Amino acid sequence: MEVNHINMQGNDCEPDRPAHPGIFPTREAGKSDDQPPERSVDFPVSVVLPAGGTGERTGLQTPKQFCSFLGRPLISYTIQAFERVSWIQTIVVVVSKENVDLMTDIIQRFQHRKVRVVPGGSTRHRSIRNGVLSLGEEEERPAGDRPKVVIIHDAVRPFVEEDFLYKIAIAAKEQGAAGAIRPLVSTVIATTSEGYLDHSLERAKYRASEMPQGFTYDVIHQAYQRCSESDFEFGTECLHLALQYCGTNAKLIQGPPTLWKVTYKKDLAAAESIIKETLSRSACVLTGGSAPAVALADALQKAIGALDMELDIVPDLMGENTRYLLKEWNFIQVSVDRSCLSEVEALLTDLDAAYRALLHPLVIIWVHLSASDELSISGTAAEPAALMDLASAAKLRNVLLYGVQLRQSKDAERWERSVLKVAEIASALIREKSPALIGQLLQA
Amino acid sequence: MEVNHINMQGNDCEPDRPAHPGIFPTREAGKSDDQPPERSVDFPVSVVLPAGGTGERTGLQTPKQFCSFLGRPLISYTIQAFERVSWIQTIVVVVSKENVDLMTDIIQRFQHRKVRVVPGGSTRHRSIRNGVLSLGEEEERPAGDRPKVVIIHDAVRPFVEEDFLYKIAIAAKEQGAAGAIRPLVSTVIATTSEGYLDHSLERAKYRASEMPQGFTYDVIHQAYQRCSESDFEFGTECLHLALQYCGTNAKLIQGPPTLWKVTYKKDLAAAESIIKETLSRSACVLTGGSAPAVALADALQKAIGALDMELDIVPDLMGENTRYLLKEWNFIQVSVDRSCLSEVEALLTDLDAAYRALLHPLVIIWVHLSASDELSISGTAAEPAALMDLASAAKLRNVLLYGVQLRQSKDAERWERSVLKVAEIASALIREKSPALIGQLLQA
Repeated sequence: MEVNHINMQGNDCEPDRPAHPGIFPTREAGKSDDQPPERSVDFPVSVVLPAGGTGERTGLQTPKQFCSFLGRPLISYTIQAFERVSWIQTIVVVVSKENVDLMTDIIQRFQHRKVRVVPGGSTRHRSIRNGVLSLGEEEERPAGDRPKVVIIHDAVRPFVEEDFLYKIAIAAKEQGAAGAIRPLVSTVIATTSEGYLDHSLERAKYRASEMPQGFTYDVIHQAYQRCSESDFEFGTECLHLALQYCGTNAKLIQGPPTLWKVTYKKDLAAAESIIKETLSRSACVLTGGSAPAVALADALQKAIGALDMELDIVPDLMGENTRYLLKEWNFIQVSVDRSCLSEVEALLTDLDAAYRALLHPLVIIWVHLSASDELSISGTAAEPAALMDLASAAKLRNVLLYGVQLRQSKDAERWERSVLKVAEIASALIREKSPALIGQLLQA
Repeated sequence: MEVNHINMQGNDCEPDRPAHPGIFPTREAGKSDDQPPERSVDFPVSVVLPAGGTGERTGLQTPKQFCSFLGRPLISYTIQAFERVSWIQTIVVVVSKENVDLMTDIIQRFQHRKVRVVPGGSTRHRSIRNGVLSLGEEEERPAGDRPKVVIIHDAVRPFVEEDFLYKIAIAAKEQGAAGAIRPLVSTVIATTSEGYLDHSLERAKYRASEMPQGFTYDVIHQAYQRCSESDFEFGTECLHLALQYCGTNAKLIQGPPTLWKVTYKKDLAAAESIIKETLSRSACVLTGGSAPAVALADALQKAIGALDMELDIVPDLMGENTRYLLKEWNFIQVSVDRSCLSEVEALLTDLDAAYRALLHPLVIIWVHLSASDELSISGTAAEPAALMDLASAAKLRNVLLYGVQLRQSKDAERWERSVLKVAEIASALIREKSPALIGQLLQA
């Protein structure tokens, strides 16, 4: 029996692939207006994101909401997940006083638009209250413009999706309160004060309360007006306050596994892996239109497809193909018989003009197809040096540039091997996004 | 304010680094006999590993205990975590009937020694019972040789550590039963039958019940003799059976975060990342003893140290340095002015003879230091081709071979830059272990 076929890559053991990852524009992002009318939210919704955590449970000095993934702090991913939902108006981020400057800097740097920063209180409930109050306090806003529904979410659950936010918002408006739940992963037990088992709960009767939760502004506002100092000091569950102080039994909605919360150090690795995976599903091949380049691109498309990545092939980014400039994270530039990098330079200029590398690093793979069948595979020595220099410059603009070189071959089998190698190398470079390997000219 | 310094790599946002990772021999593995006497277990302990899960929650076709990480199924990591504990005698793996052959194959392939495979029942409790019964049933074993304590663990918690197993075994012997607990990550709530909040539990009073759990053989055996069909059908918690049918209140011991269970797809990514990280903490540099190679190795040691990896420098693997052959996963072979790969070939032969690549892939980085200051950086064209051929052959033996080339330089600044580049490239190759990039000759 063969065990080896069970493998992390390219089979069903691969990491999470959310259907509609909230933090990333989908490839059909432009279509969001075409959604069926029942999906529209016709009342004002705002968001409170408590982000005052200290990261105790990860054992890190940096609170996890500020840990960077591909150069961008986690909280910026979470903000983006809300910012791209058209019916969400304001996102209030509540941070501890010492992190207000850091947060303001993040908002500027990643050009977030709907965000307001509010200083937190000494506990979770005090922080959320500050956020809720700030939504009702705006001087320029008449009371009627207050949000109808307030969604509360954790800064460290970046993978929340629009579909689920919609369900929470609608249920909150109808019921006064709504919250995400998930099945329990472990049995929950009660302990004696001496550290022995007292009893275990029947798993099927209980659920884990997760985020997001939604409330009408009136319910959450009233709950925080009425609750006790002890609630503010020791409580953590907003649904509980709505029940106890407003008599509102929240509607509970089972959320997808993607609602998970970055809690422990291991979760940082999982989050990075999901972010990388989501940025690695497709690439755009630029052929320049020449026949050998198109033939190579077609062969690559097939080979990379088998590696679970989608390729679009275009001659260049002119005309309607400009859209790839605005949505694609990965580019493969095929150059035939030319050892100059002018096409890559032009692509870099275009990407720069479109501000594409602001949120995520872009990958460009320069594939140099040499028509000669000779053994000299590294071209002139000037070429690798020029590639390295260009890659160093591109890195400063958050673009990772790599090179791959292959020779045209009349031997069909050898050619097929080379193409497969290019596909494997390109797929690995796009998935791994290793800064240490930029500027290398790899051999296929 | 600078946000960019908060980064996944090389700072405190990095993934889990367990103090004593159970599945990997520590670098001082030979020292385990020197442990203080209070750590020894002087009664027989065996383990039951239920591994009949179907992987429902990951949404995968392959149950997660059989998913491969670096070419090796998860369950093999978990088995190894127990196998290397000297005081554990037998590990009973309980798998569904259709996976008995697969499991037997895994045991042969990864040369596990203490393992017995037992077919599972239709539910978790039935499977565990089969495992427990098999420990008492051995014909060749007199009743007095039965295990005193049985540890039950999940096949999908591979990162359990000896320290914690010790605590569970001792507490189980003293109290009859003992179990790992963890603080609750989410509030637990009770729901009404209509899907509304009924009440929320006070988080501080409850704990998540995790694995491992330990029982005296008598307690767990009796519990399974006495429990009802309903327990067998719907129950999941062994501690509950010990309490209900033997009156044994289990001692609860808080476990480390490393006890986590691979449950969802995202956990596969986290597990892979931890396994890779654990294999990437150190490397052994072979210099051959020549002065320029030793100078480069010394500079590399400093540069790679800053990247959080430890280097040991030795001329070769003769004499007492043979120990590196038996414990190191990563090797950097420095060759000076020679374009032949004979040193790498010799290393491959030695590693083969030591069966080192059986459990985890080994990494060899061939660093070619050219004394000439000339521009021709790729040497003769034959060299990259020979490296690629050798790498392809090594891959079949689970060894990942890469090449890095640099030139000696009298310009101190330029030399320092080159060394730093080698360090970054080597560190990235060792951490990423990308099969697509083997055989490449990278430029530093």
